[in-house]
Amino acid sequence: MYKAEIKVMLKPGVLDPQGKAVAGGLSSMGYNQVESVRVGKYIEVFLRADSQADAERQVAEMTHRLLANPVIETYQYTLVPVESEEVS
Amino acid sequence: MYKAEIKVMLKPGVLDPQGKAVAGGLSSMGYNQVESVRVGKYIEVFLRADSQADAERQVAEMTHRLLANPVIETYQYTLVPVESEEVS
Repeated sequence: MYKAEIKVMLKPGVLDPQGKAVAGGLSSMGYNQVESVRVGKYIEVFLRADSQADAERQVAEMTHRLLANPVIETYQYTLVPVESEEVS
Repeated sequence: MYKAEIKVMLKPGVLDPQGKAVAGGLSSMGYNQVESVRVGKYIEVFLRADSQADAERQVAEMTHRLLANPVIETYQYTLVPVESEEVS
């Protein structure tokens, strides 16, 4: 069993209204030292695979096809082997 | 200038409909080896601070007060010093 930790962020330059809203909220709460905020997704995928390489191939493919929109988003992932019992 | 990378996840046991939907989508695309999916938020905050400790105090406080809902969510963050030019 492997756990993939996938971060999906809007590409630099793509407008991020959610990030702007959070920055505005922080500013109105008195956090004036906040310069900018970007909001993305953090996805954990638990999957069975024969090997690290197999898991990596699957994760790269599913991230590109479903989890991220490669036109406007970038992604990074890390893959760690886990014991089955850790799956929530 | 510091960059805080904040991961916000639903606590284990809290129902995650978005994760279930993604898992269903992956399964219907043929990824049958996916066991479970959890979807959270990944937030980057760029902020000015006098020291690492000051930045850490600010990030902990704003995460607890605005970025996460501590009743149902957990969070982790890392803090790295950055050059001002990296802010997007």
